Amino acid sequence: MGNLRLFLLFLLSLLPLPCHGGVTSSYSRSPPSVDMPLTDEAFRPPPGFNAPEQVHITQGDHEGRAMIISWVTPLKPGPGKLVYGSAENKRMHMSRSNVYTYKFYNYKSGYIHHCTIKNLEYDTQYFYEILSETKNASRQFFFKTPPPTGPDVPYTFGVMGDLGQTLDSKNTLDHYNSNPKGQTMLFAGDLSYADDHPFHNNIRWDTWGRFVEKNAAYQPWIWTPGNHEIDFAPELGETVPFKPYKHRYHVPYKASNSTSPLWYSIKRASAYIIVLSSYSAYGKYTPQYQWLQEEFPKVNRSETPWVIVLLHSPWYNSLDYHYMEGESMRVAFESWFVKNRVDVVFAGHVHAYERSERISNIAYNITNGLSTPVKDNSAPVYITIGDGGNMEGIANRFTEPQPSYSAYREPSFGHSIFDIKNRTHAYYTWHRNQDGKAVAGDSAWFYNRYWNPVVEPSSG
Amino acid sequence: MGNLRLFLLFLLSLLPLPCHGGVTSSYSRSPPSVDMPLTDEAFRPPPGFNAPEQVHITQGDHEGRAMIISWVTPLKPGPGKLVYGSAENKRMHMSRSNVYTYKFYNYKSGYIHHCTIKNLEYDTQYFYEILSETKNASRQFFFKTPPPTGPDVPYTFGVMGDLGQTLDSKNTLDHYNSNPKGQTMLFAGDLSYADDHPFHNNIRWDTWGRFVEKNAAYQPWIWTPGNHEIDFAPELGETVPFKPYKHRYHVPYKASNSTSPLWYSIKRASAYIIVLSSYSAYGKYTPQYQWLQEEFPKVNRSETPWVIVLLHSPWYNSLDYHYMEGESMRVAFESWFVKNRVDVVFAGHVHAYERSERISNIAYNITNGLSTPVKDNSAPVYITIGDGGNMEGIANRFTEPQPSYSAYREPSFGHSIFDIKNRTHAYYTWHRNQDGKAVAGDSAWFYNRYWNPVVEPSSG
Repeated sequence: MGNLRLFLLFLLSLLPLPCHGGVTSSYSRSPPSVDMPLTDEAFRPPPGFNAPEQVHITQGDHEGRAMIISWVTPLKPGPGKLVYGSAENKRMHMSRSNVYTYKFYNYKSGYIHHCTIKNLEYDTQYFYEILSETKNASRQFFFKTPPPTGPDVPYTFGVMGDLGQTLDSKNTLDHYNSNPKGQTMLFAGDLSYADDHPFHNNIRWDTWGRFVEKNAAYQPWIWTPGNHEIDFAPELGETVPFKPYKHRYHVPYKASNSTSPLWYSIKRASAYIIVLSSYSAYGKYTPQYQWLQEEFPKVNRSETPWVIVLLHSPWYNSLDYHYMEGESMRVAFESWFVKNRVDVVFAGHVHAYERSERISNIAYNITNGLSTPVKDNSAPVYITIGDGGNMEGIANRFTEPQPSYSAYREPSFGHSIFDIKNRTHAYYTWHRNQDGKAVAGDSAWFYNRYWNPVVEPSSG
Repeated sequence: MGNLRLFLLFLLSLLPLPCHGGVTSSYSRSPPSVDMPLTDEAFRPPPGFNAPEQVHITQGDHEGRAMIISWVTPLKPGPGKLVYGSAENKRMHMSRSNVYTYKFYNYKSGYIHHCTIKNLEYDTQYFYEILSETKNASRQFFFKTPPPTGPDVPYTFGVMGDLGQTLDSKNTLDHYNSNPKGQTMLFAGDLSYADDHPFHNNIRWDTWGRFVEKNAAYQPWIWTPGNHEIDFAPELGETVPFKPYKHRYHVPYKASNSTSPLWYSIKRASAYIIVLSSYSAYGKYTPQYQWLQEEFPKVNRSETPWVIVLLHSPWYNSLDYHYMEGESMRVAFESWFVKNRVDVVFAGHVHAYERSERISNIAYNITNGLSTPVKDNSAPVYITIGDGGNMEGIANRFTEPQPSYSAYREPSFGHSIFDIKNRTHAYYTWHRNQDGKAVAGDSAWFYNRYWNPVVEPSSG
């Protein structure tokens, strides 16, 4: 029996994996990636003494009626106040920030302000002004709150990862910024790449904050921690992981009963968004595991039909970079994703674009030998969107042949749009930087896994 | 081709795994496990006002020339001093402790003292006296330092896990304590099971400290964190994992360049011992991953031929408890264990005893379907020694049939002895509590994977 088994395994190993027509795009560009110089106009601080800079916003509660508004004052705390209001309701409100600083090796941060404004009206344009000591250094921005959560609320998410601050990063951000569709950014981790500079030069966290402000001050970016956020540098005496990231990018983790900003959830319009940390413990009994286990039963598909997961290190990746790095987390959580019919998982990390089929690999029980990705109509689509720009270059080597789980892969920079139409349909597009913003380099209809769990034409 | 592959996989799934004669012992006992009452004499504090209690020692440096001596004074810090010396050298030394306290929900700890004494002579009996305010409450103990590290230094380790404080725990500890062979205890995690009591009643951490003193004050216990050390209880407002454990059980982690007491290494005699944390992050780029990656090249098999790993959640476990819980960590680290020829891995967690064959499961690359444990002469033997006594009862349901990777399994309480003879040979025995201490319920010769990497008779 043992020999027959071995013989069958041997025969199997001779066979190529079945191919369902996955596409490896021939379009490819591989320019050198180097961070824009510190003097680049993208990094220019706003004028005025101690002017608030690096302004960015993120959702501030679980439902979408609050916003965390964050900024940095470089020289001193300043008034730490903002005023805000809507055009509909002329009454202005005032709110105070909490102020933080941190040191990292030989760097001392500016004054990092986080201000949560609450009880906002849904579906409303708000203006906000961050006050400064000198009137001409105060700064004004605006954002729009989402509609109330509901099963058929249309809403459009932008998706980006591994942005960095190179010319490619600039192209990606400009391209997205000029695309009027994205209402909220789902960011799959790896923000500034400061840690790729000598001594993790945290000035690069500041320049990055200035660079993304033109979008991140006007629509919420939903943050996911990536490996470039760890900033673990025992050689510099810096042994507390995620120190700069946790100081600079606050998220509403307590609103979802999380005990760490590295994993949390929010509801927004018709979507339930779960953020996980590839670089925290996820073994059974750990806080993240326990939180996620308790999280899935809370999702009400009649309120938020679309379940979207953000994490940094992809579970299904067929490029020759970071291959299999996501396995350890996949083994921990994949069966929950299938059981709970997650619609789509966005990851970053690999500096290319890839979309998977709906597949799972959860039959393995050690003794049955069944460990192979198979088509699974209850499984999410996995999208690698680590093609923001980074500073390490494009990933342009593939594992060959293209495995059956890979539907489309291409080594180009870009961003995605996940456009929810109603409880059953969403239209997904990927946009490479070189194309006009109306051009989709890759696209697919997503049928909701709860309300419309049939096979999509694109994954056929 | 795809259909042929599926057909072969289907045929494979019909076949039983090959069996190489693994033993499932028929000996089994399953008494109710309940913690000894707080009034049990095993928990009686020493007499005298504010007398030092819960005395335990562990290695205090990387080489074995230092010891961390820890104790608790219940009412006030007291003098926080000890005197120590060897019989050979009549000069006495004095050392001061660092004192810690912590709160956990409604519990406030006593004063926890940690005192590292350094520059000890090798292979020498030391006496130490922990001083108290009142002379009759001072307490005296002794220990023996190991011989200098060296390739042929004989040394004998005891091995235990999941001890708890039940009558079974008492039997295990008494059985081990009466066995004169063990010189140092390798403890595979799950100490007190305080978290199984209402509000994680931390008084059970104190009673456990008193309970193990009769051995742990006289020989070093090498600690591994288990899931019962996490004490993560957001419902009680306790959200910092490992709080009681980290306060009470100090380890020399900085000596091995670790940044956390949850993973570290020591050398002792002819052994290099690596402690890992099943409940911390182990993904690529995380501190534990980075530490372990840098750790293996530091092992000099000409100095310490025996590489022993301690971790809590077993990677190879065929009982019907915690099945596959170790997979996520196995996927992360197993190839390193094989490449670096780890001799043996001791785990706890499953409340039974099991010994594996030398096996590995590292051929899998997602597309080749090769995920199955196979005999591997470079791989460690995996031993589950979670049969200390716990408070949840014995694990007595097995997966059937006994998989080929399992050499011996039995649902009984006990401890093990790993007796290193020289650079090539070690004799391993497992002792169930019901037998006399000279009786081995299971035994095996271990041939060193670096100096004598041939197939052992016991692994068939």
